[in-house]
Amino acid sequence: MVNWILAMDVGGTKQTVALADGEGQIQVQQRRPTERESGAEGGIEVLLEMAHEVVAEAGLTLTEVARVGIGFGGPVDVRTGTVLLSHHVPGWENVPLRAIMEEKLGLPTVVDNDANAGTLGEARFGAGRGAEDLVYINIGTGIGGGIMVKGQLVRGVTTTAGEIGHTTVKEDGPLCTCGKRGCLESICSGDSIGRRAREAVTAQPNAGRALVEAAGGQVGAITSETVFAVAAQGDALAQALVDETVHYLALAIGNLLNLLNPELVIIGGGLSEVGDILFVPLRQAVREIALEVPYRAAHIVPAELGYEAGILGAVALALE
Amino acid sequence: MVNWILAMDVGGTKQTVALADGEGQIQVQQRRPTERESGAEGGIEVLLEMAHEVVAEAGLTLTEVARVGIGFGGPVDVRTGTVLLSHHVPGWENVPLRAIMEEKLGLPTVVDNDANAGTLGEARFGAGRGAEDLVYINIGTGIGGGIMVKGQLVRGVTTTAGEIGHTTVKEDGPLCTCGKRGCLESICSGDSIGRRAREAVTAQPNAGRALVEAAGGQVGAITSETVFAVAAQGDALAQALVDETVHYLALAIGNLLNLLNPELVIIGGGLSEVGDILFVPLRQAVREIALEVPYRAAHIVPAELGYEAGILGAVALALE
Repeated sequence: MVNWILAMDVGGTKQTVALADGEGQIQVQQRRPTERESGAEGGIEVLLEMAHEVVAEAGLTLTEVARVGIGFGGPVDVRTGTVLLSHHVPGWENVPLRAIMEEKLGLPTVVDNDANAGTLGEARFGAGRGAEDLVYINIGTGIGGGIMVKGQLVRGVTTTAGEIGHTTVKEDGPLCTCGKRGCLESICSGDSIGRRAREAVTAQPNAGRALVEAAGGQVGAITSETVFAVAAQGDALAQALVDETVHYLALAIGNLLNLLNPELVIIGGGLSEVGDILFVPLRQAVREIALEVPYRAAHIVPAELGYEAGILGAVALALE
Repeated sequence: MVNWILAMDVGGTKQTVALADGEGQIQVQQRRPTERESGAEGGIEVLLEMAHEVVAEAGLTLTEVARVGIGFGGPVDVRTGTVLLSHHVPGWENVPLRAIMEEKLGLPTVVDNDANAGTLGEARFGAGRGAEDLVYINIGTGIGGGIMVKGQLVRGVTTTAGEIGHTTVKEDGPLCTCGKRGCLESICSGDSIGRRAREAVTAQPNAGRALVEAAGGQVGAITSETVFAVAAQGDALAQALVDETVHYLALAIGNLLNLLNPELVIIGGGLSEVGDILFVPLRQAVREIALEVPYRAAHIVPAELGYEAGILGAVALALE
């Protein structure tokens, strides 16, 4: 049967290739660190090498593979399968990744950004199973997102829909990686929480003592993980940083509920693993922003796929 | 041929019933003022009367009508066709309008709120012809909206999607009709622009002289129309009110572009008729909020259906 799936997750720190069956169950998988200095060309070579290896390892040949799904850690023009940019690895400007893979592997290929892949992955295999209308928010280094309506990913007219991280939540707020000010990402991403904490500690050394201690005495080592861990111990400054994070996340999510009336808001990425210290106040704060009917209709839950979200998302892309 | 359409537009000030052919062309139409004191029961009686009359006037019988589409000026549970509430006419609490019409007319009926009907109407007959991904924002007394993705209306899991008017754009902003603060509607609806103008004139009587004069010397008579008319003559206070309106509309629209990457943003309702004094600065201000790719992909345009938007929306509902 020609219904095997090749899935590829291309990130800034690691590249993963998996072989999945027609149900999306991964049978063989390989993972290697991304070598930044070898750029796009080197990265593609490694992906092809792993692809051939996982297929061989499964005792198959490429003729038994139906489709290739690729989730890429950066903006992609889905219509042409072109990677527009990587924020982490040089050399990925305007790379026609779909065309290259289709030529090299001779298989129909779909390429999308990792946030859309993650949305499809959670919808098919994770917290979104059974839901048709959902929003996925990945809070890691940055903030990515995806929107699903009636079981279909919303891609928009030029395939850039889902940029939840660049919702303006605070006018004249912090400068964002996109060049604008006050985006959700500029306050609530893992990187931004860490930056805000380091700024707060520098401004209030006394109040920040617990945060600095938890980071081994080095202000520069304070991360978003430090903030949530220290807040859980009852530290006031860390809790204030968590409160601010919750406040702006709730503003963005509440507005999303009013607009889209989804059944689920799935929060993935590193931040989703902190548990109730985030989710309980977040649900409460969303209530202040959302209208009553969409608020009651929506569950705000952590993602389920964790470390495997990327590669399962790529599988879901191929199965879409 | 059994493909005629009965369309009904049920508003707070007027009720319209039309008979359209299978292409959606209206052949016969009646319009009567809404009698608030006769409530839902009286309103439904008038709708039925008009329905029988337009069908007879066209020389047809109900057996030649395929479907009934009803756009209602208030929240509707589309799944059951139940009107939840009218903000303008008493007696419309939890009225199973679809069931009543299906029983009385013996025809399959769809009921939705007028913002969704307007979205479908503009998409099929108006400014949205040919577009698959669009957002419709109706700025009248309040602000309603609808979202279309790949040619389908986004209704959400409990059919309340599209509440663009209740996007929080200004924390601790003015109190909104929904009970929350700083919704788009609380600043930018026709009613809110008028209210802000009257407040500004009361606070700054000198600066507000032109506004008061244009309203026949009565502060209480200043409306959003006064504001735009006086701003067009170069008045500073009126222009400041227009600027604030543009600013918050742009914030909501820019965030929508980032989220949904639509091809079109169609602005309907009374405010859309003021022309370039709104649209030129609005497009410019949206640029400050939206990311570049979705900004360049989206046209922000006035609605085209004007006074007929409601009834054509009801036709589009029946044809959906």
